[in-house]
Amino acid sequence: MNSTVLSKPTFLSEDFLLETDFSKLLYLDYASKQPIIDYHCHLSPHDIANNRKFNNISEIWLAGDHYKWRAMRTLGISEKYITGDATDQEKFQKWAETVPYTMRNPLYHWTHLELKRYFGIEELLSEKNAMGVYHEASTLLQSEEFHTQGLLKKMNVELVCSTDDPIDNLEYHKMAKNNKVKTLLFPAFRPDKAYTVESPSEYIKYLNSLTKASGVEIISYSDLLSALQHRVDFFDLNGCKLSDHGIEQLYFYPLGIYHIDTLFQRLISGKSLNQEEIRYFKFHTLYELSKMYHAKGWSQQFHLGALRNTNERMLRILGPDNGFDSIGDFSQARALGSFLNLLDSTDQLAKTILYNINPSDNEVMATMIGNFNDGSVKGKIQFGSGWWFLDQKDGMEKQINTLSNMGLLSCFVGMLTDSRSFLSFPRHEFFRRILCNLIGKDVEKGELPADEQWLGKLVSDISYHNAKAYFGFGEK
Amino acid sequence: MNSTVLSKPTFLSEDFLLETDFSKLLYLDYASKQPIIDYHCHLSPHDIANNRKFNNISEIWLAGDHYKWRAMRTLGISEKYITGDATDQEKFQKWAETVPYTMRNPLYHWTHLELKRYFGIEELLSEKNAMGVYHEASTLLQSEEFHTQGLLKKMNVELVCSTDDPIDNLEYHKMAKNNKVKTLLFPAFRPDKAYTVESPSEYIKYLNSLTKASGVEIISYSDLLSALQHRVDFFDLNGCKLSDHGIEQLYFYPLGIYHIDTLFQRLISGKSLNQEEIRYFKFHTLYELSKMYHAKGWSQQFHLGALRNTNERMLRILGPDNGFDSIGDFSQARALGSFLNLLDSTDQLAKTILYNINPSDNEVMATMIGNFNDGSVKGKIQFGSGWWFLDQKDGMEKQINTLSNMGLLSCFVGMLTDSRSFLSFPRHEFFRRILCNLIGKDVEKGELPADEQWLGKLVSDISYHNAKAYFGFGEK
Amino acid sequence: MNSTVLSKPTFLSEDFLLETDFSKLLYLDYASKQPIIDYHCHLSPHDIANNRKFNNISEIWLAGDHYKWRAMRTLGISEKYITGDATDQEKFQKWAETVPYTMRNPLYHWTHLELKRYFGIEELLSEKNAMGVYHEASTLLQSEEFHTQGLLKKMNVELVCSTDDPIDNLEYHKMAKNNKVKTLLFPAFRPDKAYTVESPSEYIKYLNSLTKASGVEIISYSDLLSALQHRVDFFDLNGCKLSDHGIEQLYFYPLGIYHIDTLFQRLISGKSLNQEEIRYFKFHTLYELSKMYHAKGWSQQFHLGALRNTNERMLRILGPDNGFDSIGDFSQARALGSFLNLLDSTDQLAKTILYNINPSDNEVMATMIGNFNDGSVKGKIQFGSGWWFLDQKDGMEKQINTLSNMGLLSCFVGMLTDSRSFLSFPRHEFFRRILCNLIGKDVEKGELPADEQWLGKLVSDISYHNAKAYFGFGEK
Repeated sequence: MNSTVLSKPTFLSEDFLLETDFSKLLYLDYASKQPIIDYHCHLSPHDIANNRKFNNISEIWLAGDHYKWRAMRTLGISEKYITGDATDQEKFQKWAETVPYTMRNPLYHWTHLELKRYFGIEELLSEKNAMGVYHEASTLLQSEEFHTQGLLKKMNVELVCSTDDPIDNLEYHKMAKNNKVKTLLFPAFRPDKAYTVESPSEYIKYLNSLTKASGVEIISYSDLLSALQHRVDFFDLNGCKLSDHGIEQLYFYPLGIYHIDTLFQRLISGKSLNQEEIRYFKFHTLYELSKMYHAKGWSQQFHLGALRNTNERMLRILGPDNGFDSIGDFSQARALGSFLNLLDSTDQLAKTILYNINPSDNEVMATMIGNFNDGSVKGKIQFGSGWWFLDQKDGMEKQINTLSNMGLLSCFVGMLTDSRSFLSFPRHEFFRRILCNLIGKDVEKGELPADEQWLGKLVSDISYHNAKAYFGFGEK
Repeated sequence: MNSTVLSKPTFLSEDFLLETDFSKLLYLDYASKQPIIDYHCHLSPHDIANNRKFNNISEIWLAGDHYKWRAMRTLGISEKYITGDATDQEKFQKWAETVPYTMRNPLYHWTHLELKRYFGIEELLSEKNAMGVYHEASTLLQSEEFHTQGLLKKMNVELVCSTDDPIDNLEYHKMAKNNKVKTLLFPAFRPDKAYTVESPSEYIKYLNSLTKASGVEIISYSDLLSALQHRVDFFDLNGCKLSDHGIEQLYFYPLGIYHIDTLFQRLISGKSLNQEEIRYFKFHTLYELSKMYHAKGWSQQFHLGALRNTNERMLRILGPDNGFDSIGDFSQARALGSFLNLLDSTDQLAKTILYNINPSDNEVMATMIGNFNDGSVKGKIQFGSGWWFLDQKDGMEKQINTLSNMGLLSCFVGMLTDSRSFLSFPRHEFFRRILCNLIGKDVEKGELPADEQWLGKLVSDISYHNAKAYFGFGEK
Repeated sequence: MNSTVLSKPTFLSEDFLLETDFSKLLYLDYASKQPIIDYHCHLSPHDIANNRKFNNISEIWLAGDHYKWRAMRTLGISEKYITGDATDQEKFQKWAETVPYTMRNPLYHWTHLELKRYFGIEELLSEKNAMGVYHEASTLLQSEEFHTQGLLKKMNVELVCSTDDPIDNLEYHKMAKNNKVKTLLFPAFRPDKAYTVESPSEYIKYLNSLTKASGVEIISYSDLLSALQHRVDFFDLNGCKLSDHGIEQLYFYPLGIYHIDTLFQRLISGKSLNQEEIRYFKFHTLYELSKMYHAKGWSQQFHLGALRNTNERMLRILGPDNGFDSIGDFSQARALGSFLNLLDSTDQLAKTILYNINPSDNEVMATMIGNFNDGSVKGKIQFGSGWWFLDQKDGMEKQINTLSNMGLLSCFVGMLTDSRSFLSFPRHEFFRRILCNLIGKDVEKGELPADEQWLGKLVSDISYHNAKAYFGFGEK
């Protein structure tokens, strides 16, 4: 066959993911102009406050990125080059060799978007140019504009929320504020350890830390709540506007079917709870926390459905969050509905964002939010953007389409990186392109009116203004 | 960017949703010419028989439409303007303000299709033209052709089936028949209350009504069945050809693991059943009802999987069916298969239509029907059209595609409105356009032969002839 | 409407399913040139070894094809013409009448691809040309090149794996090898009956056969394992490289919560196990088998989630595998993960392919494999190609896309027929076209670079080389 493929659109061109003129218009004239509010990520406050410099591209790009690690393991690359004792150059070489094998995986897009947007490198990474790219990028990382604060500024990041344990003293948040770092840094409250009671001994250790942080001696469940309230107050004083929770499912029980302090006393005497008791404990504590969030006017996030630490061999070797988690198929709807209803019934349901990791639950989430949108706040209950494995084109499109069909896309608070990496911010661009593309295609097909002004406002709102209004950062 | 978007296809043009020439051909020359058989809806027989006139557009369009209400609540509009004591004009104004925010939601399409097809209004509704539209439409509603019978005639509706409780005396069905209303009106049998036994006191009240309607004193379970059989006979005499049931899941148990009359006696003495007993009672009673339907040659419909009344606060204030229901994630396959098998094993399985509300169950439904299609009736067991939250383009396409891939689209009985509104009939047009579009695109891609005659017959069958043959309305 | 549809692409043209130039290039110059490794099918070893000749097209095409039967039953055709006593010509006539009603079902594509590729018949089958096609094809079937070995050669099939019970003596595999049949024939180990213990009496019969085949008297569970090990050794000597298992779900329990030999003694004394015990028995035996496979370097396949034999009336009449199975909605993730983890924890997890029948589980499977890809083997754990009801365009595209998004498509071992029919091999072509089409469309959109060489290698690998390297057929 005599190929004419050279006339094909260039990979990662200016029109990347924008298939119609109207899509391009919406992206270039509206969405791309908005600053970034990254309301949920896992960046290190220490690294921001101290304006960390990275020694080389492996340090900022490969260390800690379990997405890349899974790909390398799948290709048959030895752990030595992934989390092992190979040098940073060797690891980069192996990653570069892997890249062409990741075509059609979001890694292929992330990789080249990040090389292009941060470093101006347009070559496609492969084993051949690995060392060239390594040195070019690593050299750039030494200059001021590539230290953490410069990287955030380069991406027009107005604000980030880190993810912090209640025991955190928020010293780096304060340091960043005092040093007037251009990108605002706010904490977010992630109290998962306060209700993770599978291991009483681990839990007792955590309670000791919480006592230290809060000054509250914790010898009863009500002490636990007092300590958590203390930390909520402290986070609130430091600008916190949202909480986050990672849990397989939300549970629901009639309040009081177990005596919660009895369970607590068992735990602090080092005795285990059975599975139902553990679930009740989680339910009850989340319920108490949710009421605290509502009282503060915070938003609460629930990340639901991940099946974590599936590989015990690798968990023993590497610990958690190293790429051995996957998508679960837990039942979600009824208990989630009952949990939200319990809070709503006394008008103590905070603004809430539901994230699901199994796309089979998209419709459950997208309709659940409608049950508790009561006219009090625009988009009070949100169906969150594609999370983790769903943070790619197909996952984003499905989330946007399901939300559109079953709720109001116009009220959506939009994208977040959920990332540990300072190089992940082009994901906002990626999301905005996809959003504009879907809407532009609808216009092209005559399924939406070609109303540039209104649709420009709509994509600007989803890119920026909705989040700004919803969370109320900086407000008292 | 210098936009050329004015050359874009017009919103809601004649070619709306028809992306290829073959699609247009199929729609314009075949599907659009078929009358409408709306074999499942919730229109008021009273309003049809009495040829009701509506005072204004809010009365016919906003009152009772929980889809619109959910959207308004999501946008942050106060309940006063939704179900509250605001005037009809105020409510319309608030709805009009909401409309532009519903872009990409089916409401945006329904709204403008309905304004255009019934009232000839082509403007896009917004806060600016709200009062103009209100008055224009409300004025039109006063003329004879906009009374209920005229609205049905305008949409070429040949036949509608209402949804009626067994206790209904069908007086309006008789009145409509006697008055020779052009659109035929038949009842459908919806006996949900006959097996809703969560509250014994409510159930006893219902049994009293059933006694009154049937003339059967109900003091045993077999009396209950006699009373229901009486109502089945009565409905059948009045032209009923199908039943309908809304239930989270179909249940299955070995017959007789509970003594059914013992459960019944407990209920009528005011005592509660536990959850398993309630489920057994539902299973057993549905089983008995299904055999009655089979004996009459009726079709039975099962609407499966909705999670209802999730918001107790709003349920107390507004009652059920006000927009606080959502999509559940119940397990469906095994019990559903066993239930159908039980009826099939004695050759008492009626024609059956399965509707699921969670699209994750599409493939379960589309393959389940094949297990009981036994060559006796064309398309005997049906996978029903996209229901409720799935009654939109994406939901319809997924249902059509899944049915196509796993069954025979050619045997499908097609669309129904399931609506409470006299203005919902353009949904048949919407469905037909989508159907023709999918088929036309297949032809365009060379995935189907460009056989106009056969494909024209196929879309005509699905639009009209299949339903006509399947249900046997008017036959003895 | 004045139609111009004659200019539409021809149905089943050379470009079938190839929507872009790059797609055509990839298919024509790369994928189509690869031989076929059909590593999982249900072809009869007897028929291959004996180079069976078929008497007519019904015998090779309709007998045994439950996909076609389901379609005919759905259309309302009597069982007489399906599995009954009608003549082969009558059955063909009825099938031909059915074909136009299967448009949009994969049967329509399979039917015409098979007529075209094997018989050179380009007409669209219908009631009108049924007898002509019957005679033309039946005549061709009498010539040498249409006997089984010729049919395999015609499709460039390098290798097939049959599916064999452990008790099989593999005589036809040996005969084929001795006769130097051009298409290599290897056995695959399918020991489902060794852990199907619902009926003790059936199980005892099976154990007797297994004793006969293995020479091991089986009076304890450890004897059972010895007998199975004997058969694994025997299959391995005869070139077997993979096993296969069909099961609703993988189960997981703490090893030893039941005493396995006690359960076994109950069974061989004719007593039933309860449901939990049955599941434990399956779990435990699969665990033991999996370790045997790992020791041999085999791959193991798990086909998960089918709901079988739903129609007891037809099961009594026709037996299993006659078209009364469907898609289940079993919970899969946690137990599957725990089962794989148990094997992995002692480094005894064999190469594994997971097939799911419910597409709602695609993401669960596509991420599960990443948990156990440990760098030891390229693509060690695989998400298998669209299976059974999912073996069609939509199902294949979803599998390919999900695998792409959540794993590495580049490591995929690709297509298999899973078929009982010697005429099913165009499904490999179908798969390859779809694969090339998806990739070519990505290039066309600028979502992949237009790198012909690399993408040509990628589709060649998935079509052929990956499977060749993964399974190690012919290696010691």
